Amino acid sequence: MNIILLSGGSGTRLWPLSNEVRSKQFLRILTNDDGTKENMVQRMYRMIKNINDDVSITFATSQNQVSQIKAFLGDGVNISVEPSRRDTFPAIILACYYLIKKGVSLDENIIVSPVDHLVDKEYYSLLKKMDEMIGNANLTLIGIKPTYPSEKFGYITKDLQFVEKPNENDAKKLIGDGAYWNAGVFGFKLSYMIDKAKEIIGYSTYDDIIKNYNKLNKISFDYAIAEKEKSISLIKYFGLWKDLGTWNTLSEAMTEQACGNVIFDNCINTHIINELSIPLVALGIKNSVIVATPDGILVSDKTESSRLKSFVKEMRPMSETRQWGEYKVLDYKILPNGNNSLTKELIINRNKSISYQYHEHRTEIWTIIDGEGVIVINGNATKVKYGDTVTIKPLQKHAIKALKELHIIEVQVGDELTEEDIYRYDYNWGDK
Amino acid sequence: MNIILLSGGSGTRLWPLSNEVRSKQFLRILTNDDGTKENMVQRMYRMIKNINDDVSITFATSQNQVSQIKAFLGDGVNISVEPSRRDTFPAIILACYYLIKKGVSLDENIIVSPVDHLVDKEYYSLLKKMDEMIGNANLTLIGIKPTYPSEKFGYITKDLQFVEKPNENDAKKLIGDGAYWNAGVFGFKLSYMIDKAKEIIGYSTYDDIIKNYNKLNKISFDYAIAEKEKSISLIKYFGLWKDLGTWNTLSEAMTEQACGNVIFDNCINTHIINELSIPLVALGIKNSVIVATPDGILVSDKTESSRLKSFVKEMRPMSETRQWGEYKVLDYKILPNGNNSLTKELIINRNKSISYQYHEHRTEIWTIIDGEGVIVINGNATKVKYGDTVTIKPLQKHAIKALKELHIIEVQVGDELTEEDIYRYDYNWGDK
Repeated sequence: MNIILLSGGSGTRLWPLSNEVRSKQFLRILTNDDGTKENMVQRMYRMIKNINDDVSITFATSQNQVSQIKAFLGDGVNISVEPSRRDTFPAIILACYYLIKKGVSLDENIIVSPVDHLVDKEYYSLLKKMDEMIGNANLTLIGIKPTYPSEKFGYITKDLQFVEKPNENDAKKLIGDGAYWNAGVFGFKLSYMIDKAKEIIGYSTYDDIIKNYNKLNKISFDYAIAEKEKSISLIKYFGLWKDLGTWNTLSEAMTEQACGNVIFDNCINTHIINELSIPLVALGIKNSVIVATPDGILVSDKTESSRLKSFVKEMRPMSETRQWGEYKVLDYKILPNGNNSLTKELIINRNKSISYQYHEHRTEIWTIIDGEGVIVINGNATKVKYGDTVTIKPLQKHAIKALKELHIIEVQVGDELTEEDIYRYDYNWGDK
Repeated sequence: MNIILLSGGSGTRLWPLSNEVRSKQFLRILTNDDGTKENMVQRMYRMIKNINDDVSITFATSQNQVSQIKAFLGDGVNISVEPSRRDTFPAIILACYYLIKKGVSLDENIIVSPVDHLVDKEYYSLLKKMDEMIGNANLTLIGIKPTYPSEKFGYITKDLQFVEKPNENDAKKLIGDGAYWNAGVFGFKLSYMIDKAKEIIGYSTYDDIIKNYNKLNKISFDYAIAEKEKSISLIKYFGLWKDLGTWNTLSEAMTEQACGNVIFDNCINTHIINELSIPLVALGIKNSVIVATPDGILVSDKTESSRLKSFVKEMRPMSETRQWGEYKVLDYKILPNGNNSLTKELIINRNKSISYQYHEHRTEIWTIIDGEGVIVINGNATKVKYGDTVTIKPLQKHAIKALKELHIIEVQVGDELTEEDIYRYDYNWGDK
């Protein structure tokens, strides 16, 4: 049983908690029975692994989510990396060829599921049932029992016709006639999809597709495959299925009214998240979400939060989880002399290292505020610890490895401070 | 004509814009005719100086406001510094002895005025008129024509009786009977107050009062003097007189709905101030104030903002204007090893310097991100500029002077990071 988890999403609708690299599926807002928190990626992965021992999971996603998926699930996780976003059909085809390259044979079952929906245990039983049914039809789908006449979902009618985003009246009629929401979950034999790929895209190896990926048309799996397929079987799902795509729906899933350094009083139907270290005080606020993170501050009436996307689409992410740890931007400014300065906090996990790299345009000054590590500059390795400072000039190759969890304040100064000004090399840490 | 400006206030009711060192009179929220901004201290000082050339202004305040008053008005301003807060009577007495020490003679006129009210031009004409009337009675007062039956002010009745903070019904009755609000403005001959000081406090020199100041009873000028005085003349004022003591009243005085990095849409009767560099987005919020500063974030219904004080009384200020410039706390944390780390941005104005000092408990690492200066460590002076770093160990005496405006990222690490861990010395900069 092979499962492909589609991990997409731009995250602007949940700004400032999510951003272009931290989509909603990476937000640790789900509470487990033991009170610990996890995100949708962690939960989906854990629950699917529970179905049976030999289930194999592959993520289909873009480069900017790779670090985070590995940070949450470990280096060993399978990831099919899309060179660019081309919608679900190319992403699924690419993942199928990735599986073939990994040695999966053409007669094996494949299930594709989105990773960014909140579901309950029944969903995972259904995936198992789906695995058993694949082969009865060319394509097996999951239909969700609708709970309201949504204008945002696709519907599958009784006679297996697809209706995309109807208006409210049509949606009511569809539900009255027994239609289901299209969950975007697809089951098929690998051979079926490879045949479709050859027929529609024309390429027949992983390397060919990767090379030409940016030229592929953006096209959804529904449009390219499902709507045209005659041999379909539909499995019905009656459990929880929530999009959590806006603050209005996400806040409903929050188990606490407030998280972080928050004082509130006389607030009604209001959810508050504060990821900043400064305190947030809310008094007498009704029907709103209040969210403060290093990326920004949102104060929005819940019903208006769906309009957020258009206001925040251009904003720069101020914190990121990386494979080696995380960083947070503390300060950014243009100085009177015309230069720029950017101050970051870096946390490098024990035994992790950042890549060997240099910058053309900036000097970096590191102050080690906690931990121990080894720093390499132009090939020379030195031990550093709490209280030490290191100045890294432009063009100097540098890397650092944490022997104990490292906390570093990094001050960047230069005429151009961008994530793009970086040239990476391999470095063999040996027994350092 | 000598004017004593009482500058008090804890500022918790306007958190997070004001705090214990940045009271409301230092907030630059007033807009001049030419569009520039100023605060109440600047406006009151400027307008009084306009009355006539030989007016002398003295501030009566506590140590934690001295830096800010000098930062806004220059080093030459007269300040009578209270060793601790003992209410208005001791503060006025101390300022009177300060004036005597400065050479003011006993037959000169003194006018005492609070600095933290919003008034219009008529107020300053009235101060001039008051100066001319002093001597007709022992005590000259200003009465404000009441605009509503406030429970928070003192009233002066037609027959010059004082009623402190009546309930609403009594206030209505007082206003019906022709009572005025007590503005807390007092005019008298210096000799009169010195006689009262000797009679009530017992000390008769500035040095004696300073030495024993912390032992004096907390007592208001109204209670100690005004309510007992039989020879009073009252001047009536019909102009603008606003307390701006809560967000509700302060936001009414704001000429713009939003300041700073703010995006807002469909917000009604809502005022927004963002002093942080990250963006703030507000959608569909009504009848509220939203304020974000390095000290914290407030989101409050306007009518509830008067309850703020009890929620924020213990909070630490995260930014300060000093005589040499300003600082802002960027980050504070307790590290896994039990140490603390505090990251600040310092801006030192051109030709200004911080005092020669050392710390017992912390190492400071300075990264110069803009400007030029001279740093002295244990007596050795070195020039520093943009891109340089300096590590200052515990017990090392250090000072820095800006040759061009300096911007510094300061990282403090140590077991105790407090404003109190500082030992100051004199340093002669000579021609450095």
